Amino acid sequence: MKNKKAVVYVRLKEGVLDPQGVTIQRAILNMGYDVVEGVRSGRFFELELADGNGDLSGKVEEICRKLLANPVIEDFSVEYT
Amino acid sequence: MKNKKAVVYVRLKEGVLDPQGVTIQRAILNMGYDVVEGVRSGRFFELELADGNGDLSGKVEEICRKLLANPVIEDFSVEYT
Repeated sequence: MKNKKAVVYVRLKEGVLDPQGVTIQRAILNMGYDVVEGVRSGRFFELELADGNGDLSGKVEEICRKLLANPVIEDFSVEYT
Repeated sequence: MKNKKAVVYVRLKEGVLDPQGVTIQRAILNMGYDVVEGVRSGRFFELELADGNGDLSGKVEEICRKLLANPVIEDFSVEYT
């Protein structure tokens, strides 16, 4: 399997308070929109992968655990394209 | 169309320097992984939408343009689930 790009999505675990999301939700309300009942924020990283290295998913998962996500309070998922 | 959740992805426009991405790429290299040739970072927001308001995509786009993204340097896309 040859991967060209890996997109890593990092989000706070369920139950972990998301102050940025709360602030955004409040801002949306203050702008006059009453259609949004909750906001959770997250980050994503698009990793351009080197060609011809076979399956890199193991290495990508290591990079996620060690660098991109804080496993204590965050979950991550990876999509390959 | 009834939308339950909108996920907004905000990323820097192509050509706009991404210092966070550059720093992460360097960190990955310093950790000994040589499989990542580029990193672009972005943010996403999961908006829980109120039920029974019909098609909210217009309002969601307004919220994106006014609050979640900086249209000068960022693009956004929305996925409904």
